[in-house]
Amino acid sequence: MPFTASHATAGPRHAVIREVGLRDGLQSLAPTLPTAHKIAWLDAAYAAGQREIEVGSFVPARLLPQLADTAEVLAHAKTLPGLVASVLVPNLKGAQKALECDADLLVVPLSASHAHSLANLRKTPDEVVAEVARIRAQRDAGGHATLIEGGVGTAFGCTLQGEVAPEEVLRLMVALLDAGADRVSLADTVGFADPESVRRLFERARREVGDKLACAHFHDTRGMGLANAYAAWQTGIERFDACLAGIGGCPHAPGASGNVTTEDLAFMLERMGVATGLDVTALLALRRQLGAWLPGETLHGVLWQAGLPQVLNGAAAVAA
Amino acid sequence: MPFTASHATAGPRHAVIREVGLRDGLQSLAPTLPTAHKIAWLDAAYAAGQREIEVGSFVPARLLPQLADTAEVLAHAKTLPGLVASVLVPNLKGAQKALECDADLLVVPLSASHAHSLANLRKTPDEVVAEVARIRAQRDAGGHATLIEGGVGTAFGCTLQGEVAPEEVLRLMVALLDAGADRVSLADTVGFADPESVRRLFERARREVGDKLACAHFHDTRGMGLANAYAAWQTGIERFDACLAGIGGCPHAPGASGNVTTEDLAFMLERMGVATGLDVTALLALRRQLGAWLPGETLHGVLWQAGLPQVLNGAAAVAA
Repeated sequence: MPFTASHATAGPRHAVIREVGLRDGLQSLAPTLPTAHKIAWLDAAYAAGQREIEVGSFVPARLLPQLADTAEVLAHAKTLPGLVASVLVPNLKGAQKALECDADLLVVPLSASHAHSLANLRKTPDEVVAEVARIRAQRDAGGHATLIEGGVGTAFGCTLQGEVAPEEVLRLMVALLDAGADRVSLADTVGFADPESVRRLFERARREVGDKLACAHFHDTRGMGLANAYAAWQTGIERFDACLAGIGGCPHAPGASGNVTTEDLAFMLERMGVATGLDVTALLALRRQLGAWLPGETLHGVLWQAGLPQVLNGAAAVAA
Repeated sequence: MPFTASHATAGPRHAVIREVGLRDGLQSLAPTLPTAHKIAWLDAAYAAGQREIEVGSFVPARLLPQLADTAEVLAHAKTLPGLVASVLVPNLKGAQKALECDADLLVVPLSASHAHSLANLRKTPDEVVAEVARIRAQRDAGGHATLIEGGVGTAFGCTLQGEVAPEEVLRLMVALLDAGADRVSLADTVGFADPESVRRLFERARREVGDKLACAHFHDTRGMGLANAYAAWQTGIERFDACLAGIGGCPHAPGASGNVTTEDLAFMLERMGVATGLDVTALLALRRQLGAWLPGETLHGVLWQAGLPQVLNGAAAVAA
């Protein structure tokens, strides 16, 4: 047997789960969650320990009516002490709104798949890089504190183009940083990744840009969301996007559905001894609330069915 | 940032998925699948490339009427060339039947949790070890070729006892081998494991017994089934128990439900470049058939919803 031993080591002891359900989750659902419910979600997520939340997207309301109240939701988020409130912006115009609203972070999506980029953003990847340079200039000219993150999507392939070369993903990450992004993230937009492709790409990306690789964004399209998160964590990743109840997907990537589930990921990390600052029981309660707010929508995730591990007969409790 | 780099390496390039749906899956369902359907399942699983299948259990029919036809199913399995047909046996009496029926492998379950062992097997773990010695003597006296596997369950804790010390798991593994088991496996019977506890325990177990640690058995109770399988694979494990459609659980472990899903695990491994010999499309078709055979039963798994990755527009196909 040629294979003899593993050299796998433990990853970071702390991790952040950035809640993107209010943006990536809601944008792909048909119903529009009322602003009051979004604010209640924000408050409950904050109470459960979440300190990084993507509250919406500054895109034309006719394209994503579900996110038309992003400025209002962001204004509320800014009242929560210590919360890093981020927004997605597709272009300079959206970024200007984010800067005006004093978002803590703006995320500019770039699709490493040329075909997906044209279909989803109507720009080539390099045109997005050029837009990031303009956003950076605007940020600096205005003296805003808002951080800029370049989010490299379809990093593991896509339904329109098929394969995406890792070299192209790495080139675009570096180009984004050169253009003025403060940091970058990698996203498996359509659920094509597996733990080994995650390990390989994240290892290469970290060798290339170190801690500037700030976040991993996975979908659970084919059940590998948590396995992929574990693989990324092993390479040193400390921040993960996730959606409460695994809602969300990409309207331009057929077959894609469901981000990694916040409460399942939080439980896995805590169970692994990785501190997230999250109250998993509170997240499960919030999940139930979300189900009531979104009747008829399919919620995802597995933990909710079994709940936290229980020990009967008064034996010593197993750490959750 | 103290954490700088991963030393994770790739695991084995080949893996076997041992189908346990006909035993672990069916034993926890209320309806009894007719023998003809079990045989059709066997044939279809074999056609899909499965070469190791646990066909049933030699237990009193009054305890598990769902498995009362194990001898008949085993007889059919023995007609399929190259198939390793295994059965679960709780004691010497069951082992005698397995030997008489010329099973290729018999698996003796042992629960590392003392409390779970008493509740589930009515024996202490060390009494099971002693039974394995008697089974080995019987096997050798009869000159049977049947292999003996000791399956150490509740290796990551259980609902009755709570924590199970890794040292006790390792002690019992070694004791099983000393008593005459040809090999051992580790099972997260009730879904308490996480990828890091899997990595730690499997690394220690492999240091202790090497390739005599022959199989990993995970449940997806809290969504970590695939992540746990990935962690075990990283330590060198090449064989995984799984159930088609993720059916199954443990009737004596409240809250436990759903083994790792065969088709999801097969897809993950193949996607990782690990050869399983399995036709995932055929497994998905068999899953649909199983659903028709078990109306009203909840099937699990994620892959079936999205299907295999598709690439539109005639672009190069992405390897499935």
